[in-house]
Amino acid sequence: MKRRKFLKTAAAGSVAAASGALSAPAISQGRMEWRMVTSWPPNLPGPGTSATWLAERITRMSEGKLTVKVFGAGQLAPATGVFDAVSQGAAEMYHSVPTYWRGKSAGIVLFGNMPFGLMAPEQHAWMLHGGGQALYDEMYARFNLKGFLCGNTGNQWMGWFKREIKSLQDFKGLRFRTPGLGGEMYRRMGASVVQLPGGEIFQALQAGTIDAAEFIGPWSDAALGFHQAAKFYYWPGVQEPSSAEECVINKAKWDGLSAELKQVIEVACNATYAYSTTEYIVRNPPALRTLVDKHGVQVREAPRDVLVAAGNAAGEIMGELLSDSDALVKKIATAYVAFRENAVQSARHTELAMMQARTLPYTFPKS
Amino acid sequence: MKRRKFLKTAAAGSVAAASGALSAPAISQGRMEWRMVTSWPPNLPGPGTSATWLAERITRMSEGKLTVKVFGAGQLAPATGVFDAVSQGAAEMYHSVPTYWRGKSAGIVLFGNMPFGLMAPEQHAWMLHGGGQALYDEMYARFNLKGFLCGNTGNQWMGWFKREIKSLQDFKGLRFRTPGLGGEMYRRMGASVVQLPGGEIFQALQAGTIDAAEFIGPWSDAALGFHQAAKFYYWPGVQEPSSAEECVINKAKWDGLSAELKQVIEVACNATYAYSTTEYIVRNPPALRTLVDKHGVQVREAPRDVLVAAGNAAGEIMGELLSDSDALVKKIATAYVAFRENAVQSARHTELAMMQARTLPYTFPKS
Repeated sequence: MKRRKFLKTAAAGSVAAASGALSAPAISQGRMEWRMVTSWPPNLPGPGTSATWLAERITRMSEGKLTVKVFGAGQLAPATGVFDAVSQGAAEMYHSVPTYWRGKSAGIVLFGNMPFGLMAPEQHAWMLHGGGQALYDEMYARFNLKGFLCGNTGNQWMGWFKREIKSLQDFKGLRFRTPGLGGEMYRRMGASVVQLPGGEIFQALQAGTIDAAEFIGPWSDAALGFHQAAKFYYWPGVQEPSSAEECVINKAKWDGLSAELKQVIEVACNATYAYSTTEYIVRNPPALRTLVDKHGVQVREAPRDVLVAAGNAAGEIMGELLSDSDALVKKIATAYVAFRENAVQSARHTELAMMQARTLPYTFPKS
Repeated sequence: MKRRKFLKTAAAGSVAAASGALSAPAISQGRMEWRMVTSWPPNLPGPGTSATWLAERITRMSEGKLTVKVFGAGQLAPATGVFDAVSQGAAEMYHSVPTYWRGKSAGIVLFGNMPFGLMAPEQHAWMLHGGGQALYDEMYARFNLKGFLCGNTGNQWMGWFKREIKSLQDFKGLRFRTPGLGGEMYRRMGASVVQLPGGEIFQALQAGTIDAAEFIGPWSDAALGFHQAAKFYYWPGVQEPSSAEECVINKAKWDGLSAELKQVIEVACNATYAYSTTEYIVRNPPALRTLVDKHGVQVREAPRDVLVAAGNAAGEIMGELLSDSDALVKKIATAYVAFRENAVQSARHTELAMMQARTLPYTFPKS
C-alpha cells in the first residue's frame, strides 16, 4: 500500500473508531463491549491488521457476548500509554509489543524479543509448552495484567540507512531509531539510539533528525514510506530474530470472565499469532519487489563484523539480565537461556538444516 | 515416554473412546455431538495430542453446543480409512495428514507436504494469506469435504536406518517406509519404498521386513520405539520440510453449521496449527538427548550427494505435477511453485539468514 493511500485509509478508520469511543463499555443482557487500545495507527499493515482480526474473532466466536472495539494509537491512549491505561482500568485490553515495556521491567522484553534469541515459532513454543506463560503471568500480575502473545513479525530487517554501512565503524554516532533490547545492543556498538513510536519515524528520517531507523520489514515499512527518506535497506535484523505482539487484559476484568470466554480469548490469541506471522511471509516479498523495482531501494547484507559485534553485545545484555537484582527477571532470563539453547540446537538438525538444503545446487521448477 | 508406557496409556484410551462409540451423534436442545476419527493411536505424542487439544477447544469455546469426541485409528475407521469415512458421512470429521491421500489426488498432498518445499509457517501462510485455502476447498469439495490445516510437525528427520548411509549408493534397494511424495522421491533415488501406518512401523523394523523408516522426529519416534530396532538416526528430513496435519469435516455437516460454530472450528484449527508446531520444538530436544544418552542412538547428517539427488528427484516430481492431466492438480502445483519461490527468497533475507547468524562465533551465555 502506498503511504498516502494507507494514511488516508487510516484516517478514515480513526473517525469511525473515535465515534465508537463515545460509548462506555456496556453490559446488557449478558453482553459486554470491551475497548482494545493499541500502539498502532488503525489497521497498520501487520500489527494493526492483526489487532482487528483478533477483535473480530473474539466477537464472532462469543456470539457477541464479548464485543471488542479497536482503538488506534492516540485515540483513547497514546501508543506507549496502553500498558498503563489497561493496568489502571481505563480500557479493558490492549494490543502492543512487550518490547516497549523495558521501562517497566527488562524481564518483560524477553517475552517479545531478544537480539540473537528466539525465532517466531520458538518464542511461541516457550510460552505454550516451555513454561514461559507462567513466568509472563507472574510478571504481569505485578501490574494487574494478564497477557497472551498474539502475533509476531518473524525475523525483521536491520533497517533503513541514509548512508551505506561498510563495517562496524559506521555505527559510531549513528542516530538510529530502534527500540527495546535491540536498541541497547546497537548503543553498545556505538550508535546513538533514539526512541520513537512507529508513526513518528518517517518525519524524523525525512527531517534528518535521525540517520537510520528500523521498524519491521518490507510490507509494514513500505506503508510508512521510509524508502522516501533513506535508500539503503539492510538484512538480517539480528536485533529482532522475531518480535512478538501481545494482547493484554486488565486482570480484574480477566478474572471476572466465564471459563468459556477465557478460552475464546486464549485460543483467538493463539490463532492470531499464526495469522500474523504468516501474513508477513506473504506480504513481504511483493512489497520488497516494489521497493526495489519502483523506488530504487538498495538491498544490502549486513557486514559480518557488524553481526559478530551485535552477537557479542546481545550476549553481554543477556549476561546482565541473568544477574539482575530483581529475582523474577533473573528467573525469566535463566529460563530463556536454557530454552534458547535447546531451540538453537534443535534448529541445526531441522529448520536451519532444511532451509540450507533448499539452497543446494539442484533443479527445481520455477514460476 | 517409553514405548511400553505409551502403548499402555494408548490402550486405556481406546477402551474409553470405544465405549463412547456406541452412542450415535445426538442433537438435543441445540447441542450436537460429533465424532472425530483420526489416523493415530489415541493421544500419540504429536498428532494424537493435537487432535485431543483441538476437540477440547471446540467443545469449550462452543459452550458444549458442539461436543467433539476423538477416536483413535481403528476404533471407528482404520488409520487410512478416515478420508472415506468422513466423505461418506460415517463420521462427522477426521484428523489426519494430506500426505496420506495421494491415491485420491496427487494435488491433495501439496497441502500437507512437498519434498524441498514449504516450511511449517510458510505452508500455513499459503493457506491463510496466499490463496491456498481456496484451492484446498475446490479439491475437497470433490469429495464432499471441507478442511483446515490443523497442526504441523515442522521439519522432520530423514529417519531410522539399520545400516549407515555413506552415499547415495546406499539407497539402492533399501526397503524404506516413507509415505507420500517423499516416498516417491526416495523411490527415484533407488529405494524400495514401503507404505505402512505409523502404528505398524516398529514391528516391521524389528522383524526386518524393512531396513529403514521415517515417521516424524525424536519425540514421536521415541514413543513408538524405533530406536530399539535401528540405531542410525539421520537429518535433515528433506522429504518433509514440514508436514501439515488437517482437520476435515463432512461438507454437508459443515454447511449446516451456524456462522459462529464455523468460526469456532476455523479459529481452533488455526490455533492448533500453532500449538502443534511449537510442541515439537519443545519436546524434540529432550527426547533426542534420551535417545542418544540412554539408548546409544547414532545421530548422523545425511551426505551432500544424497541431499542433492533428493532435491533433483523432488524437482522432477514437481515438474510432473505442473503438467498433470487434471487441470485442478496443475493449478494447485502452479500456485505452489510460485508461492515457494517467494518464500525461499524471503527466508534468505530473514529466517535462514537469522538462524545462520545465530551460529556465528560470538559469546552468548550458556545454561
